Amino acid sequence: MDNPFPADSVGLVEPQREAFDKPLALDCGRTLDAYELVFETYGTLNAERSNAVLVCHALSGSHHAAGYHDNGDRKPGWWEACIGPGKPIDTNRFFVVCVNNLGGCHGSTGPSSTNPETGEPYGPDFPIVTVADWVRSHARLADRLGIDAWAAVIGGSLGGMQAIQWAIDFPDRVRHVVAIAAAPRLSAQNIAFNEVARQAIRSDPDFADGRYQALGAIPRRGLMLARMLGHITYLSDEAMRAKFGRDLRKGKDDFNFNYDVEFEVESYLRHQGRTFVEHFDANTYLLMTKALDYFDPAAQYDDDLSTALEGVSARFLVVSFTSDWRFPPSRSREIVRALLDGNKNVSYAEVEANEGHDAFLKPITHYFSVFSAYMDRVATEVRA
Amino acid sequence: MDNPFPADSVGLVEPQREAFDKPLALDCGRTLDAYELVFETYGTLNAERSNAVLVCHALSGSHHAAGYHDNGDRKPGWWEACIGPGKPIDTNRFFVVCVNNLGGCHGSTGPSSTNPETGEPYGPDFPIVTVADWVRSHARLADRLGIDAWAAVIGGSLGGMQAIQWAIDFPDRVRHVVAIAAAPRLSAQNIAFNEVARQAIRSDPDFADGRYQALGAIPRRGLMLARMLGHITYLSDEAMRAKFGRDLRKGKDDFNFNYDVEFEVESYLRHQGRTFVEHFDANTYLLMTKALDYFDPAAQYDDDLSTALEGVSARFLVVSFTSDWRFPPSRSREIVRALLDGNKNVSYAEVEANEGHDAFLKPITHYFSVFSAYMDRVATEVRA
Repeated sequence: MDNPFPADSVGLVEPQREAFDKPLALDCGRTLDAYELVFETYGTLNAERSNAVLVCHALSGSHHAAGYHDNGDRKPGWWEACIGPGKPIDTNRFFVVCVNNLGGCHGSTGPSSTNPETGEPYGPDFPIVTVADWVRSHARLADRLGIDAWAAVIGGSLGGMQAIQWAIDFPDRVRHVVAIAAAPRLSAQNIAFNEVARQAIRSDPDFADGRYQALGAIPRRGLMLARMLGHITYLSDEAMRAKFGRDLRKGKDDFNFNYDVEFEVESYLRHQGRTFVEHFDANTYLLMTKALDYFDPAAQYDDDLSTALEGVSARFLVVSFTSDWRFPPSRSREIVRALLDGNKNVSYAEVEANEGHDAFLKPITHYFSVFSAYMDRVATEVRA
Repeated sequence: MDNPFPADSVGLVEPQREAFDKPLALDCGRTLDAYELVFETYGTLNAERSNAVLVCHALSGSHHAAGYHDNGDRKPGWWEACIGPGKPIDTNRFFVVCVNNLGGCHGSTGPSSTNPETGEPYGPDFPIVTVADWVRSHARLADRLGIDAWAAVIGGSLGGMQAIQWAIDFPDRVRHVVAIAAAPRLSAQNIAFNEVARQAIRSDPDFADGRYQALGAIPRRGLMLARMLGHITYLSDEAMRAKFGRDLRKGKDDFNFNYDVEFEVESYLRHQGRTFVEHFDANTYLLMTKALDYFDPAAQYDDDLSTALEGVSARFLVVSFTSDWRFPPSRSREIVRALLDGNKNVSYAEVEANEGHDAFLKPITHYFSVFSAYMDRVATEVRA
């Protein structure tokens, strides 16, 4: 019973912490004088420091991408399916780093941290951060870890956007980008969903203009609604049909004719919402949605994504999923087309999957075989 | 200046009211001892009483489908595009009736009405009504108006569901059904969106368990969120892109880096939400979403829609819109297939349109020409 974890898991992991006191200028015009980043690493950095891979997390993710936090821990990191010995991101070959983004609520400096200017939690005074701000902060962590260049920067959804931004902002420090279920910028519909989620949180009386923490409150209703809505966009219509159909909740055989939960899908959404409010911060949720809305690397280049990607030297793997209606294949194809227009090296896979946007988290055969094959190639270069 | 309205409008109209004191048994098991229905009529009932058309309204609609309520009224009824002299539902030929559904908030008995048992507004004690309940109540109104059979029962979205239910429940009283942008029942995703809307309303502290009216309050935040969310599902992704793109609100040329409205789409949604709370009742919104969730005529027939439609004698026109993702063409095709399987007479048009679910309200050329041609046929029979 020395190792209670599956053989293909990285097993027990411990979050690490680095403090930075060189001011970080942010896109919003403000500066963070000092901040901390919490991160995890899996696998071993080789002597040449050439096998490091950065995994970027999505909206509600964290630095805890793989493994377990203690022997009794039953819930592994969010990308356990993908990171570990023999998995697509093979920890026998790669040194994997995953950082909780600035503004997060899992240990890195964010709205729940103490604002040194007031001695109180930042709350709504935490600056709005962008994908480019995260990349800048990650680069400093890379410096600290002695990693000149990443063998690959990898992410799904908002994580994929960070990987793209890395390749644009630090072309010499990224050899490969893997951007999964991502988009070059949000659509009006994507922004609309974010806006409803933000309004849900901000209109909750317990939000208290973002100062709920100081009052010992949590805007549960709003955050729960935001998460329920999020889940609708993460699942495809097909996935919902397969998972719930119009089934009534277990043990029921007729309608309630009241507003108690009655369909399985209602039960699922309420459960997801309730669980979420216990471990996620509302101000962080707001920040993450804004980072999504603002991401638009082509904006500075006359809306020409190809020009935005002109200086990129990384090679790309882009993956999309047929039933993903949050960032559908057409959005990934925009990225691929822009790379091809610039004569960049890009592989693309459009994976048949019913799981919707959530597919990027699942061990889908076609997806994982493409991903593994690509990472094999990355590993070969590391050894060369 | 005798007639300040467009020549193809029915012009000035006045809502009418009928009171019913024969108890109405509802699907939920409860009974409404007495109720009133508010309705409007356009055109003239012929001597044979054979040219009457029933228009059924959707979730947020009312009996005010066409025309104007006073000479200064600048906003016509919700289906002005479609009802009037020379329009698809031609008031020179048809006598058009549109009823505010029971449970509504525009004059028919509903949650805002006085509960005779308490002397207080019904509020949350108003029974949950179904599409079949509405049809039963409409049939009594038809009796009162001396209409034995409708030349056609017509509706879009939830209105189309009522038209289908009419044909099932009163096969001898419906000669034609026009079901536009409808579905034979909600998908899990449809129910999920309804559930988030309901939770938004019910978790608003001003909802006060539905007794807000007695307290002089309105659950504005919740109702606003529900409406914003609704609008996302009424518009297609393409329509949103065409309408708003990623445009910043007029007069702005850079991001706020705060949570004020900044994208045009945010501005639109907040405006829609704010306007809605001024003229719609939250308890009614809840009831309407439940009527949608419960609609499933095939459920009693082993989920076989064709069997459910077996007794129907009406002929059908079914119309869907390519960009409608709330009730996409595939859902209309289920209706068409079930009718064909039962050797029923059905015409079907799948209209290319970018407007999403909202397309059913718009004067789209292909849609209106199919609709007009079908109604010509209905009118020919009326004269014969």
